[in-house]
This record gives sequence, structure tokens and C-alpha cells, in this order.
Amino acid sequence: MQKLHPIPLQRVTISDNFWEPRIRRNREVSIPAIYQLCEDTGRLAMLHKGWKPAPGQEAHFFWDSDVAKWLEAASYSLATHPDPVLGQKVEAAIELFANIQEPDGYLNSYFINIAPEYRWKNLSFFHELYCAGHLIEAGVAHFQTTGKPTLLNVVRRYADHIYEVFGPGKRVGMPGHQEIELALVKLFRTTGDSRYLELSQLFLDRRGQTTVFQDEGRNLPPTVAQWYRQFYGEGEHFNTAYCQDHLPVRQQTKAVGHAVRAMYMYSAMADVAYETGEPELSAALRRLWGNVCCRQMYVTGGIGPSRRKKGTADDFEGFTEDYDLPNLTAYAETCAAIGMIFWNHRLFHLEPDRRYMDILERELYNGAICGVSLDGTHFFYENPLQSKGDHHRQTWYSVACCPPNLARLLASLGQYIYSQAERDVYVNLYIQGDVRLDIGGQAVLLQQQTNYPWEETIRLTVQTDQSTNFTLHLRLPEWCRRAEVLINDTPVNVARAVNTNGYFRLEREWKSGDQITLTLAMPVEQIETHPAVPDNIGCVALQRGPVVYCLEQCDHTVPLHQLVLPRNAQFTTHFEPDLLHGVIVLRTIGLAATEPNPTHLLYRQDPSLTYEPCEITAIPYYAWDNRQPGAMRVWIRSGVSKE
Amino acid sequence: MQKLHPIPLQRVTISDNFWEPRIRRNREVSIPAIYQLCEDTGRLAMLHKGWKPAPGQEAHFFWDSDVAKWLEAASYSLATHPDPVLGQKVEAAIELFANIQEPDGYLNSYFINIAPEYRWKNLSFFHELYCAGHLIEAGVAHFQTTGKPTLLNVVRRYADHIYEVFGPGKRVGMPGHQEIELALVKLFRTTGDSRYLELSQLFLDRRGQTTVFQDEGRNLPPTVAQWYRQFYGEGEHFNTAYCQDHLPVRQQTKAVGHAVRAMYMYSAMADVAYETGEPELSAALRRLWGNVCCRQMYVTGGIGPSRRKKGTADDFEGFTEDYDLPNLTAYAETCAAIGMIFWNHRLFHLEPDRRYMDILERELYNGAICGVSLDGTHFFYENPLQSKGDHHRQTWYSVACCPPNLARLLASLGQYIYSQAERDVYVNLYIQGDVRLDIGGQAVLLQQQTNYPWEETIRLTVQTDQSTNFTLHLRLPEWCRRAEVLINDTPVNVARAVNTNGYFRLEREWKSGDQITLTLAMPVEQIETHPAVPDNIGCVALQRGPVVYCLEQCDHTVPLHQLVLPRNAQFTTHFEPDLLHGVIVLRTIGLAATEPNPTHLLYRQDPSLTYEPCEITAIPYYAWDNRQPGAMRVWIRSGVSKE
Repeated sequence: MQKLHPIPLQRVTISDNFWEPRIRRNREVSIPAIYQLCEDTGRLAMLHKGWKPAPGQEAHFFWDSDVAKWLEAASYSLATHPDPVLGQKVEAAIELFANIQEPDGYLNSYFINIAPEYRWKNLSFFHELYCAGHLIEAGVAHFQTTGKPTLLNVVRRYADHIYEVFGPGKRVGMPGHQEIELALVKLFRTTGDSRYLELSQLFLDRRGQTTVFQDEGRNLPPTVAQWYRQFYGEGEHFNTAYCQDHLPVRQQTKAVGHAVRAMYMYSAMADVAYETGEPELSAALRRLWGNVCCRQMYVTGGIGPSRRKKGTADDFEGFTEDYDLPNLTAYAETCAAIGMIFWNHRLFHLEPDRRYMDILERELYNGAICGVSLDGTHFFYENPLQSKGDHHRQTWYSVACCPPNLARLLASLGQYIYSQAERDVYVNLYIQGDVRLDIGGQAVLLQQQTNYPWEETIRLTVQTDQSTNFTLHLRLPEWCRRAEVLINDTPVNVARAVNTNGYFRLEREWKSGDQITLTLAMPVEQIETHPAVPDNIGCVALQRGPVVYCLEQCDHTVPLHQLVLPRNAQFTTHFEPDLLHGVIVLRTIGLAATEPNPTHLLYRQDPSLTYEPCEITAIPYYAWDNRQPGAMRVWIRSGVSKE
Repeated sequence: MQKLHPIPLQRVTISDNFWEPRIRRNREVSIPAIYQLCEDTGRLAMLHKGWKPAPGQEAHFFWDSDVAKWLEAASYSLATHPDPVLGQKVEAAIELFANIQEPDGYLNSYFINIAPEYRWKNLSFFHELYCAGHLIEAGVAHFQTTGKPTLLNVVRRYADHIYEVFGPGKRVGMPGHQEIELALVKLFRTTGDSRYLELSQLFLDRRGQTTVFQDEGRNLPPTVAQWYRQFYGEGEHFNTAYCQDHLPVRQQTKAVGHAVRAMYMYSAMADVAYETGEPELSAALRRLWGNVCCRQMYVTGGIGPSRRKKGTADDFEGFTEDYDLPNLTAYAETCAAIGMIFWNHRLFHLEPDRRYMDILERELYNGAICGVSLDGTHFFYENPLQSKGDHHRQTWYSVACCPPNLARLLASLGQYIYSQAERDVYVNLYIQGDVRLDIGGQAVLLQQQTNYPWEETIRLTVQTDQSTNFTLHLRLPEWCRRAEVLINDTPVNVARAVNTNGYFRLEREWKSGDQITLTLAMPVEQIETHPAVPDNIGCVALQRGPVVYCLEQCDHTVPLHQLVLPRNAQFTTHFEPDLLHGVIVLRTIGLAATEPNPTHLLYRQDPSLTYEPCEITAIPYYAWDNRQPGAMRVWIRSGVSKE
């Protein structure tokens, strides 16, 4: 029996009003801009053997990963939108990697050109295996989308070298920043060479079982030692949890440490569990998922609230305690939200349950795309849920992981929409376009027509030259409390059609022209948080469909913190085509704390505030900071109505 | 006509249940402990010529100031409580200073022993003038309380040297950390030498008029340059506001920069205004006071909310924007609260209005004494108004300004209670004890009997061998909304007796045995904040008399953030003698957000929280973190009552 698998993006088209323009801007603006920045900052130059930084220029050991992620993004884009100019740039960059590769297969331009004495010396700090992982992902993507083996051959030689150095019976090493583990599984799937799967599993199995990282921290040169201490601490306070090395992976129950590292590692664990069927790994994943999604996730899908804990090495870019979700200081790195997409996508194929796709959708429409400006030129690294008006997207970051990560996500969005296992076809996301299916040898075209996430209706049409029996699984999102399904205008008994995994299960002999109409009611919902979260108590967030909303100061005359939303507030919803590239805006009458007798006193014994009616306007969270700078809030003070 | 002046502590006794035990612990525990730490850390050793740090030991250029503040505290203590052992230590320390003083009068052991090449090289960074200021204060205090000129002579020689180097027509320098300005006025008042007043004024007048600090920042050695950048920024972003050098002092309107530096500078401005009567300085002080107290002060009196602004040199240990008063991250340095006491004490004598003494009292009972543990051994540097349970007092800090600052405050508390100008006697603070007055040559003993701040009644008794006409001014605190005054059991018409400055004005021929009974009603008040403060909206703080309260987790089973205080809550108040060295505890029935149907969901569409009655217990804010560690809050969610 075939396992459930994603349908690759080459067989999917996207033609909607929400994602298609974003993917187009990603292609036309972001991918070229990231290439240009790779060139301008020296990242491409460093790929020339013998290159040295100019005076005052600082090269970084993670630079190769940015070029690799750009290559991966460009490859995906070429698969759906051929572009000779981009194609030439891709081939030229691949040639750089091929030319600088060492005879033994080693390939990291920083350690070839700048610091050869540190080659493989400090895996916990120097990110060589992390860069290798991204390069492997790029090689696989390039091969799968173009059919050309140029980069794949390069990364196979590199992977073989890594296998020689760190494989079974060899040096007990593992990456400080996980990434190569999931890349190696991709390489295994593409090449069939099981050594790559073996090495991936080995890297995972070694975690939490050795003192490799503590040992590497000894006798470092002073500049490195300083950074090392900052990330890992030292001595008895050495923070193994920072890179999830505190426990063997199968024993981990709470998400800890650097959030992106955690996501990439959990993704690899899901990959290995998918390939091996090992129940112990799946059980660990289920526990970790419960911890992340029910205790440590912002309503936007953001994870990893902490930039750095005061005075300690703990929690750098990472998880903290359960229910610790401060809004103003939320770190919630864009890459971590993207990591949640990678991880939940894999979990879904391991265990097809809507809960994983619900999270994936939450990230897509909120935590992830928030990371890029509407015009595709500016990026968030941190995604707070509240701002005083001083947090803005930037064109680039010296640590530039997020922009190319978003680029590869958007360029490969097609792969997240559908999944299939033989005669079971899953529609996970509602995005207008179509998918070319092969069902037992029979070509079937499934067309989606929808204006999701703004409108409630999704129309699916089957096109086939021969009637075919298969089961369509349509996700009923957890946020939806009233759904209707029609097949050729005949209502389906919804309660009976919903499977325990939260998908409508529509099995029949489908003939060409058959039409399914799905309606997902999208009232404006006031979302409340578990009371254990101190920062949201007494507050609500607004959500409509999958889209989480926020208030921006430029829509209000009263400071946002003075607004109160009555529990029984009635909202109007308008699609405004010219606002923020077209969004549904929510409006209601709330209350504003005002002073009838203005006084300059900072503190008063008598309650002097009164609450006056005041219009409240909410826009999608992902679209904030695209107009004039100002305060922003997702969580709004909630008030009991006066009625 | 004599100006209003404080009555010195030698003429005041304190015999109450609140302050006397604190002053005793300060004398018996804190002052000896600080001496011991000065010895153990090398601060006393550095006062020996030729001393060098041991390998691994780091000496600091501000060390002399800690010894000086200890000397000042010890001198005050000797004035009220002679102690031969302490007296010997004081004389020995003074001898160290005298012996290491250079022939030209220069006196800073760090720049004599460790870094002579930096002597007077960088006033903005190296704190030499700051240390000199504290040493001068110590010299004045030692002379005034013991009559011995030993240290006074040393500091005069040093001040003369400084006058030679930086006086009129000489090098245009000024301190990066203000302090010497107020010290020089003290030295002027003690010696009558007007050059010291002149130099103080010169230091003030130079501020905001030069590029001295920018110039000093050039060509620094790398280690110093790094620190320099951290405090002052660099280039066009050079942060002159950090040390209040952004504008001439008479043009300053908003409190900016490092809070302690601001307080010491404003104090010196008040001193100079007091001596010169210059209206422009007074006007600037009034504006700055309005900004600090009506826009930038916590309800505890804490000021300077910021440890450091994200990624900038701005706001290090200092002020930020108006109404920016975050509770969890409040820096609110203990020394800044003490600085508020110094400043408001001076403002009161410049303009006798209760508002200055109201603030002084707020600091005393809340922001300042919070800085020391009940047992006198542990100190707060930062005083947040909310804690997750991870903020605790420490025995010492590497930058140890706060512990000896508290020690000198407590040892000299007597001087804040009374003021006098000829036949006008002001009672500013209600603290049991007595004061020996000289009214036109007639000795009058004024006795206070009270259990303030726990009880509402204050009884003042006049003892004199001859009836004397004078005016008693009794402060009616701003927090008090119902007061009664009896003279010899005869009610005084309160409305008529209250002066525009907020003091009861009781003028008569006082005879021995005359008794004034003042009753200040102390109901529990729910304090609301100006709505422009985002962090307190929808919340109240509890205050009874001058004491601000807080909730500690150890008194509650429900997490503190889940508690709601109804607006009409009725409180019981009990004095509990065995709790926290004796406090009045507030208790009421509030509401606790609870979940009737426990669920693990982090976010819910339906309001599922209910509010159940729950006992709420509040203790004085100053006494928090003296029991088991746990969360703390001053601001409590406020709810409309269900009635």
C-alpha cells in the first residue's frame, strides 16, 4: 500500500487572487533582490577559490547557506515559471559551487577560503553541516525541477565525504544547527542511496547521548569562545538544550532551545519515522507537537518568544516556559514559522489529521507571510504581536536566513495543497488553481475555484476522460464551525461525511464535470487564550477564517491600548481592493477609555475613566507595517458588554 | 529673613516601630556588611599607594565612591549612635584617603595606582569627578557629625585642585556622571568658600554648551571605546542626552538619559537656585519635576524604566518616552529613587509645597526601602513592579552604588522630618520621636507619637520652659482625603487651616504641654493610572496611607494574572506583627479566572472562562521577595462589580 505523499508542485497550478500575486512578486522582486544581495555582500564572491574579504569586510561561515536557499527557491520557481535569465544565474551559481569543491568532496567556501584551519573543528558553532544541508536541499530541488544532475552530483560527493567523516564507526559528530538531517532524507529519496538515510538517523540518534558539544567548547580562540559562551553558556551551566542536545530525541517531551533548530530537527525526525515506521519516534513527535501547539505557540503561529533571557545564555532565539507568550517582545522568528510549516507538513503525511494542516494554514496566512512586505522587498526577522511603532521590516539582515527561506516557501507553495495515496486524494489547502492527478493510471484534473481566504465558497470540479473511483478528502478547518458540502448541487450529510481526522470523506465513482461545492462559514471570531497565558488574559484576538487580525494605529485616533472590544460586538466585513493589496477589513463599534475631566495627574484614587463608543478597525496581521509607522496590537482588551 | 532649611539629624530622634528598627539594622548589619565587602573586594586595599590587582582581579574606577558613601553613612550613624569600633574604622579609612592623596591634592586611588595615564583624560567615562563628589559629601558629613576636620581638609585640598584644573578660565570640563555639583554646594555651605559654589555652577552652566564629551570619545583605547560606544553611541548618533548634555540646563524640559545622573544634577540645580535665587533655574526645575512626576514615575516612585533599549545606546539605565512605564521590565534603580528623595528634599526648601514631600514620602515607603531586604543583608539594584519569580535581592553588585546609597539614606533619615525658618516649623514626615528646636533663642522640644504608616493618628506635644509664639506647619498628604486636627482636644477648622501649599498652618503662642492630634484617614484606595500609560490600563494598584501594596504568589493558589479586583471590593486591614517584621495586610474577595471545563486548547473561539470568588491578599510592596520566591504584581486587573 502506497504511503500518503505530497503532490509535487510541477503538477499544481495556482491562479488565485491571494497567493498567485505573492508568488509572482516573490519571483519578480524577492528572488532577484536576494540574488543581488548575495552578490553585493560578497556571498557569491566567496565561492571563488582564493577569495579574501576586503579590508573592513566580514565574511561569515553561514554565507553558503544563503546562496543555497536562493538556489533552492530559484529552482522551484523555474519548475512552475521557466525563465532563461534566472536559469542562467542558477547554472552559474552551481558552477561556482562545483569549481570550489575540494577533491575529497568538501564544500564550504568559508572554510576553504577564510578559515581552513577550522574545517570540521567545531560542529556546534560553525554551521558547516547546516550549510551542507541547505546545499543538499538545493541540489535535490534543482534536480527534481529541472532534471539536471549538475548540483545533485556536487552535493552527493559532499554527502559521501560527510558520510566518510561522520558515518557509522567514524567520528561521533553532529550539527550544532540541525538541517542536514532532513536534507539527507531528501537525498536518500531522490537517489535511493540508503547511506544518506542512515547518516540522517545517526545524527539524530547521537543527540543527547554525548559530550561532543561541551568538548568542542574547550580551548577555543578568544573571539569564538566569546560567541560560544553567549550561545551555549559554559562550565556546569553549559546549555545543551539550546540545540536540543539535552536528551536523546526519543525522550524529548518539551520543545526547548533555539526554535529553528528544533523545527528542522523535528522535521527530520518525522522524515525518518516516515521512512522507518518507528513508533517510538512518532510518539516523541506527538508529545513535542502537543507541547508546541498547545503551550508555546502564538495565535499567529509564531514560536520561540525569546530573543535572549536577561543575563543568561538561555533561550537565545528560542522557546522558554510553557505559556510564556509576551506580545511586545515576541521574537517569533520568520524562519521558525516556516519551520512549523515544514514540520507539520511532514507530520500530516505520517498521520493524516487535519490538526497538522490547521497549524500549517495558520502559519501560512499569519506567522510566515507576515515576514515579507506586500511589495516583496522588506523582511521581518522578528514577528511581535504588539508594537509601539518602532518595529519595521528591513531589506536585508547580516544573518540573512529569513528572506531566502520565505522565497523558497512561496516558490514551492504548490506542494502543500494536495496529497495522495493511491485512490485517496487529499485537498489540504483551499487555493484556486488545479492539480493533475494520476489515479491508478487514469489522468484526472481537479480544479479549485475559490476566493479563499476572503470568501466562504470553494468549488472543486473533476475533469477526466473516464469515470474513476477515488476518495476525495477535503479538510474541514478546525476554525470552521458551520460547513456545507454539495455534490452536483445535492447536499451531503456533513456530520456523517466528516472523518475522525477532520476531513470530509467523499468516495464515489467520479465522472467528468462532477462538482463539489464546499462552504466554510467565516464569521468574525473573538479568540480567547488559555488563562495560564499571563499576557493575554482579559484580551481577545480577532480571526476570520484562517486570517488573524490586528489593529494599527493609523486606523485609529485613540491609542490602541485604550480600546476595549465588547464581547457582543457586531462586525462588518468589507473587501477593500485598494487597501493593502486587497483585504477584508473588520469594523465594529467598541469603547475607548477617555477622560471626561482631563487631568495631568499620573495616578488617581477615584476612577475617572469613562468608556465612549469608538470605531475599531482591524486588518489582517500579515499586512501590518505596510502603511505609515505606528502602534500595532493583536490582542485587544475585552469588555463585558453594557447590555 | 532666614530661608527654610532642614533640621539636622543630630537634633532629631527616631523611636518608632517602622523606621527605628530599619535604622538599627542599617547600623548593625548593613553598614558593617558594606565595610566588609569594601574590604573583601579590594576597595580598601586599592587605597594603599602602589597597590595592584591580583591576577584575575579587576579594579574599577568608581571604587572610591563606594568607600566614600560608606564613610558618609557611617558618619551619619555616629552622629546619632556613637560607636567606638565604627569610629575607628572611619578614622582608619580617612587615613587611607589622606595618605594616598597626591601632593597637588589629586585623590583617586584607581588613577593613582592603576591607570595614572588616564588621570583627568576622560571625564565623561571615568567617573573621577563623580568619585570626588562622593568623597566631598563624606568629608562634609564627617565634619558636621563629628566636628573633626580630618576628611574635610583632605577633600578641600582635592576640591581646590579641581578648581585649579577646571575652574573659571581653565579647562572646560565637566563630569560625565553628575554628583560633584551638589557636593561642592555642601562644601561651600560648610566652609563658606564661595569658589566651591562658583565651580558647581560652572559645571552646571557648561552642560549642553560644548562638544567636550564627543571630543573625549575620539582616539580611545579599544576596550574603553567599546564601553564608550555602549553608553554614548557614536558619530552622528552620539547620545548627549544620556548624561543630560543635550541642552543647557535652563532649557531642559523633559527628563532624559541616565536617571541617577539626572537626579544628582537636578539636585545640584536646586542647590544653586537656593543659594542664588535665580528664577530661571527654578523654572527649569519646576518643568522637569512636572515631567518626571506626572509622566515618567512609577506608582512606587521608581523612575528610569529602561535597562537598555534594544540595539541602541539610548536609555541606558534611564528615562524613555513619557508614559512608558512597563512593570515587568521596570529598571527603576534603587539609586534613582534615592536621588528623587535628594531632589525633592531640595525642591521643598526652594518652594515649600507638600507636593515635593508627597513624592519624598512615596519614595521612602516604597521605591527606596524596597531596595533592601528586611534583614538588611540583600539589595535590589532594579525594582520592577511585576515579577515572574526570578528577580531577587543580592548581597552585593559589581557596580555597587545602591547598597551604600541606601545605607547613607537610612542613617540620615532624621534630617528629612522637620524644616524650619525662624518661627516657622514644618513637620514633613510623621515618624515617632522628637526634635530639639531653637525658636528665636528659646529651646522647644517637639514630640511626635504615632504608629505611622499603620495607624492614622499622630500626636504632637510641645515641651518648653517658656511659652513661645511660632507657626507649626503640618503636612496634609495628598493621598489623604479626610483629616482632623485637634489642639488640646479642640477641633480645628480643617478647611480654613490648610494653606495653599498643602500644610496645616497652626500659629499661636505655644505653651508646654500643648498637644496637637492629627488624624489622617487611611482607607484602602484603588489607584488608577492616566490612560496614556499602556501598561496599566484596566488595572488598579492598592495603596493605604503612603504605602503601595502588591500581591505575592505565596499568598495565592491561583496565578496572580488570573485575579480580578472588583471596583467595589471591601477590604479588611489587619496588622500582623509576625509577618514581614510587622505589616498591615489587606484582604478582600476578588475574582479568579477559572476554567469550568478544563481544556488543553491554547486558543478558543468561545469565551470559556468564568470568574469565581477568590481571596486576594496584599502586602506592602517594599516587603516583597522576603519570603519564598514567586510571582509578584503591583497592578491588578480591575473588574466592574457584578452588583
